[in-house]
Amino acid sequence: MYLARVVGDVVSTHKNDRLVGKKLLLVKKLTLDDEFDDSVEVIALDVVSAGVGDKVLVVQEGSSARTIFNDQKIPVQAVIVGVVDRVDIER
Amino acid sequence: MYLARVVGDVVSTHKNDRLVGKKLLLVKKLTLDDEFDDSVEVIALDVVSAGVGDKVLVVQEGSSARTIFNDQKIPVQAVIVGVVDRVDIER
Amino acid sequence: MYLARVVGDVVSTHKNDRLVGKKLLLVKKLTLDDEFDDSVEVIALDVVSAGVGDKVLVVQEGSSARTIFNDQKIPVQAVIVGVVDRVDIER
Amino acid sequence: MYLARVVGDVVSTHKNDRLVGKKLLLVKKLTLDDEFDDSVEVIALDVVSAGVGDKVLVVQEGSSARTIFNDQKIPVQAVIVGVVDRVDIER
Amino acid sequence: MYLARVVGDVVSTHKNDRLVGKKLLLVKKLTLDDEFDDSVEVIALDVVSAGVGDKVLVVQEGSSARTIFNDQKIPVQAVIVGVVDRVDIER
Repeated sequence: MYLARVVGDVVSTHKNDRLVGKKLLLVKKLTLDDEFDDSVEVIALDVVSAGVGDKVLVVQEGSSARTIFNDQKIPVQAVIVGVVDRVDIER
Repeated sequence: MYLARVVGDVVSTHKNDRLVGKKLLLVKKLTLDDEFDDSVEVIALDVVSAGVGDKVLVVQEGSSARTIFNDQKIPVQAVIVGVVDRVDIER
Repeated sequence: MYLARVVGDVVSTHKNDRLVGKKLLLVKKLTLDDEFDDSVEVIALDVVSAGVGDKVLVVQEGSSARTIFNDQKIPVQAVIVGVVDRVDIER
Repeated sequence: MYLARVVGDVVSTHKNDRLVGKKLLLVKKLTLDDEFDDSVEVIALDVVSAGVGDKVLVVQEGSSARTIFNDQKIPVQAVIVGVVDRVDIER
Repeated sequence: MYLARVVGDVVSTHKNDRLVGKKLLLVKKLTLDDEFDDSVEVIALDVVSAGVGDKVLVVQEGSSARTIFNDQKIPVQAVIVGVVDRVDIER
């Protein structure tokens, strides 16, 4: 899992059946200093009703993702599994 | 999943049996600014009839890929699962 | 597995059910020279009661992680599986 | 899958039993401009009798690899699954 | 799989039960020019009795790793599966 921020969404009408009705959110990884890590920009599905601007927990692993949707056939890698309230870092 | 653009295709006559008859498309990852991310260039199979120049959704995970083709023995990692109509980014 | 240091924790009240009650630790990979590798910052679950500041062993692979928790449905990638006593490097 | 070129081979007499008798080829990823991508150098097994100098298709995913060899216990990640005849890129 | 050199080992007395009694070796990836690739430093388990200084074959994939140990519950990603005698590169 890693910290990320939801920065937008993607509209795709012509897509795999299993993805129909699923919201596709654009997320960008955050560093511990709360800055964007440009090297990690992915499209994630969502199970916690996150919105654009939210700081979230992203799990990026196929089996985890499919289990969350109770659908062993959904083609998915990244899922938003939590909204972050607070990050405590000891420096 | 990530955003990518189809930039070409690959011809291979001598290949694994499970890949025979499958179109091999070259895709290049896109940044949120719609520029190419040179570090991610892969060969993807296609299930939505995408063509060269299309902006697409790519899922890159073996189990997802095999499930889409209903073939647990096809050697594949990346599959094009959607054609992108629009990307909305909040800045 | 890789060497990492626990640098903080994450609070998320609104998250996937399987993660409720699990402590979410922020870990940062260490180089062999004991410096932080900024490119690897992840959120790990813990099974050895590691604390902030500890040098730990992190395994980052979904199946390993789920097996450790005896929960095939927990969405998790990284788990702290050991606290490091000593690293011997031959130079 | 990605494009790569076979650049050499590896000799190892003392190795895991499942790998005995398997040729270990060194492959290096190619960019779309046909240059070497130094960040991806792996050892691949081969099922299409590729030789040094050949431009090939490499699939790098454990389950795909094991399926190709019909051996669920072979420790392998990367396999050469095709020899490339031609790459067409639209610029 | 990739080429690596064993550069040290890690001592951890407080660790997951499945790892008790397993030697934890520090390995660093090698480029084809036999130089260290600093971006890949991992802790590997060993099945070929490799020692510090040896040039080895590392497979980094969870399922492969667990199969080698005949233990579907061992949390492991990287395993040393061969000692390298010779690398032939055509330039």
